[in-house]
Amino acid sequence: MKYTKEQKWERFQKYNFEFPSIGLAVDVSRMSVDDAFFDKLEPQLQKAYASMTALEGGAIANPDENRMVGHYWLRKPELSPTPDIRVEIQDNLKNMLDFAAKVHAGQIGGAGGKFKNFLLIGIGGSALGPQFVANALGDPRTDKIKPFFFDNTDPDGMDRVLAALGKELNQTLCVVVSKSGGTKETRNGMLIAKHAYEASGLDFGKHAVAITMKDSDLDKLAKTDNWVKRFPMWDWVGGRTSELSAVGLLPAALQGFDVKKILEGAAATDELTRSTQTKKNPAALLSLAWFLSGNGKVTKNMVVLPYKDRLELFSKYLQQLVMESLGKALNLDGKLVNQGITVLGNKGATDQHSYIQQLRDGLNDFFAVFIEVLKEGSGKTIFVEPDITSGDYLMGFYLGTREALFDNDRESITITVSEPSAYTVGSLIALFERAVGLYASLVNINAYHQPGVEAGKKAASDVMQLQKLILKALTENKGKLLTVDEIGKLTGKTENEWVYKICLHLSANQRGISQNRDSGQVKFGLV
Amino acid sequence: MKYTKEQKWERFQKYNFEFPSIGLAVDVSRMSVDDAFFDKLEPQLQKAYASMTALEGGAIANPDENRMVGHYWLRKPELSPTPDIRVEIQDNLKNMLDFAAKVHAGQIGGAGGKFKNFLLIGIGGSALGPQFVANALGDPRTDKIKPFFFDNTDPDGMDRVLAALGKELNQTLCVVVSKSGGTKETRNGMLIAKHAYEASGLDFGKHAVAITMKDSDLDKLAKTDNWVKRFPMWDWVGGRTSELSAVGLLPAALQGFDVKKILEGAAATDELTRSTQTKKNPAALLSLAWFLSGNGKVTKNMVVLPYKDRLELFSKYLQQLVMESLGKALNLDGKLVNQGITVLGNKGATDQHSYIQQLRDGLNDFFAVFIEVLKEGSGKTIFVEPDITSGDYLMGFYLGTREALFDNDRESITITVSEPSAYTVGSLIALFERAVGLYASLVNINAYHQPGVEAGKKAASDVMQLQKLILKALTENKGKLLTVDEIGKLTGKTENEWVYKICLHLSANQRGISQNRDSGQVKFGLV
Repeated sequence: MKYTKEQKWERFQKYNFEFPSIGLAVDVSRMSVDDAFFDKLEPQLQKAYASMTALEGGAIANPDENRMVGHYWLRKPELSPTPDIRVEIQDNLKNMLDFAAKVHAGQIGGAGGKFKNFLLIGIGGSALGPQFVANALGDPRTDKIKPFFFDNTDPDGMDRVLAALGKELNQTLCVVVSKSGGTKETRNGMLIAKHAYEASGLDFGKHAVAITMKDSDLDKLAKTDNWVKRFPMWDWVGGRTSELSAVGLLPAALQGFDVKKILEGAAATDELTRSTQTKKNPAALLSLAWFLSGNGKVTKNMVVLPYKDRLELFSKYLQQLVMESLGKALNLDGKLVNQGITVLGNKGATDQHSYIQQLRDGLNDFFAVFIEVLKEGSGKTIFVEPDITSGDYLMGFYLGTREALFDNDRESITITVSEPSAYTVGSLIALFERAVGLYASLVNINAYHQPGVEAGKKAASDVMQLQKLILKALTENKGKLLTVDEIGKLTGKTENEWVYKICLHLSANQRGISQNRDSGQVKFGLV
Repeated sequence: MKYTKEQKWERFQKYNFEFPSIGLAVDVSRMSVDDAFFDKLEPQLQKAYASMTALEGGAIANPDENRMVGHYWLRKPELSPTPDIRVEIQDNLKNMLDFAAKVHAGQIGGAGGKFKNFLLIGIGGSALGPQFVANALGDPRTDKIKPFFFDNTDPDGMDRVLAALGKELNQTLCVVVSKSGGTKETRNGMLIAKHAYEASGLDFGKHAVAITMKDSDLDKLAKTDNWVKRFPMWDWVGGRTSELSAVGLLPAALQGFDVKKILEGAAATDELTRSTQTKKNPAALLSLAWFLSGNGKVTKNMVVLPYKDRLELFSKYLQQLVMESLGKALNLDGKLVNQGITVLGNKGATDQHSYIQQLRDGLNDFFAVFIEVLKEGSGKTIFVEPDITSGDYLMGFYLGTREALFDNDRESITITVSEPSAYTVGSLIALFERAVGLYASLVNINAYHQPGVEAGKKAASDVMQLQKLILKALTENKGKLLTVDEIGKLTGKTENEWVYKICLHLSANQRGISQNRDSGQVKFGLV
């Protein structure tokens, strides 16, 4: 891939595709694409377009789980396969906007008056999108409500968030998000928040809304406890594609973002990426470039580098969207393929001072996806040198790094967007959702299930059960110090490694379990 | 790697190494290590220990740059190769602690009184460590000063930070950090901060301190403009190992952390990791496990998963420490090796809801490094089920995921630490610094230079020069619309692709350049 400057310019003119209708361009000229590759992939892409059409029409696109995949309907309800779904989407959007307007007007508030903060309690697909968008569009000068998050089951982490909220708990709205309504981390977060509200003499339900599927445990609880409101999630929206459902749009509306513009950006990008002409379809171009980089069995990492502080969390969002969708053991024919694309990256120019050394000189095991934002934002123009601003430098560092990588045989894609706006955020989300869908079709996998996550959850639940057995055994032997093998035997299980780990954890946290190593052997007991 | 539960427990007892003196354990039982591998690597490890001894004694360990590598002296100045260096380290620590104490007491303050915030302006090694530590130890209940960061050259990003500081600029201390004193992003950030202070009628110098090498441009500026104070950086401390120099310790002291405990944790870990008995050296165990995972030519990604919110930024910190140190084209004999270990990860259990699907089922191209923190923190114990806390779940999810990965042939290391404390933070930093040094020796590379980053900086500087030529050409042709080829020709250069990109960026940002596509061809002009 050694090209002269003239050849680079020629390739750019040929393989940089601009989509002025949505203010976006996809440049694959720094990938080793050529016309022959476009031709070669065309039949597979045509199949991919057809499968996306079927999916959007309501076909069961997630065969294992026997589910429709309907996130595209969220931004164009007219496409819904049934009138019921269409009306539900439309009504829910109206309800959310009404709700946010009432919160902003103070018609709905907390015990301390108008809501100043929201605390979103969710994890994975119920937090990554909201966090990305809160950071991409948030601004202390314009935010109507400040966002806070519980996105884990770490009690210390939650304590810290509660401390930051401080005395404003009575002006904080909890938004509890769990599609299934049974996610343990979210349940735990909700219980800890509830405890904090009650410790402050507040009625939790009067400060909480739920986003969940109808009749889930969370839905029932919110109903019984008279929470402020319940918003629906649907079976046909997957967690990692739920940002444009209530999961993402309610927090966005609360923070004061233009939710309709987000939807508009996504809808326009959906429209464009339905094109069956590959060079007129930015999502197809992305999926084609990904396919190229690993020859369909991608073993290359994707390093996502937005040159924009606001987009710093996009790579975290994409880690879920891309890796959970594409990281699959089996293909649709049941053949073992171990697919996947690993996503990493934070933001440019910052990351150049972190790991560009390895990208340029070390393992050539990646391709970069640069995101260039043309319009800098609303601030004043401050010159740092004659004719040069700080934002010019940001562009210069992007161009310089792209060049230094390419000249050392490292490939990259550039996505250029006009401005850091609500429209762009919707557009980027829709672009990658479609690229993932098309790519999955190219490599013949189901992008909409996640069979690999159950084993870890099951094992975690076994650990919790074992802890109960250990506590029972130690209680029955109160005052005695026992070896791990002895405790293991009392539990009737064979997981002695877990027994040791659990006892170590309990003894470190004032749970009445003490640890003794005097005999040269570790022993635990309830004292 | 299919083991019974009994075999797992046996392996754990054999290959989990506990270091009670520093409250840390390294478990490599879930890597495919065996005694034969330890034996095989022993001669190489002995060479690695010897090279670390030479390095700590002041040998030129960075031959390209003819520099000593002295970050180990920072936590044990007695080890310094000369009395001058020893005294400098000791004096500087005393100066920093004095300075922080005066700031906390209000003896040193801003135009608006006592400093309530600091704004650290730095990038890469001058920001990643401070950001990691600020988040690891920070707490709204105990922080003496609130931390803010400019870590990029994005003007919009900086505007947002300034907006968050709002009217408290007169109580905000700027800490400008650049070892060389010539980093453009930091220079730009400093100029933008200065502009904001002056726009508020404040004397910037009275609200700023510098951390930089003696006589650097930044040092001279700070001296001329009478900044509050200047703290030294030294030639023999690399950016990515500078966290325990003024770069990291001054912000830590300002935020109110126990800086001496951080140093103590690092010093004790240094002491332990000087052991030439591999099984008594936690850093050697780490480097051995890394080596194993890729057979010395590591092509596996390292997924860092601390099960602790406070440690979420550790993987970002490690991206620089590991990738910039190990991502090298040539080995010390000048042979092309393209080494490196790619680092990614955020935190558990959160990431389980993001990409564990791919880790378990997709590409087996990684090993995980779990970080387990035994003591949960200072909060109240809240039970989410009988006998079970939210923190128990955090442990359960770690154990469950480790199990689910291992049972599907995915390897992991676990580092267990006692508590999330200043001591632990120092210890973890020292542990990985040493592991990187030892690993570099195992694969025979220079871990202390970064020859690959210059090309991108040089190209960025060429872009800035080209922009000046373009603006000159357009000014001389004011009122005319020109094609990219025409503008390129006027600059006398051949980078037309850059010409197009620069013009696009200028025209998007009200810089007097307009864009016209009426003729079907894009033209730019100064109007």
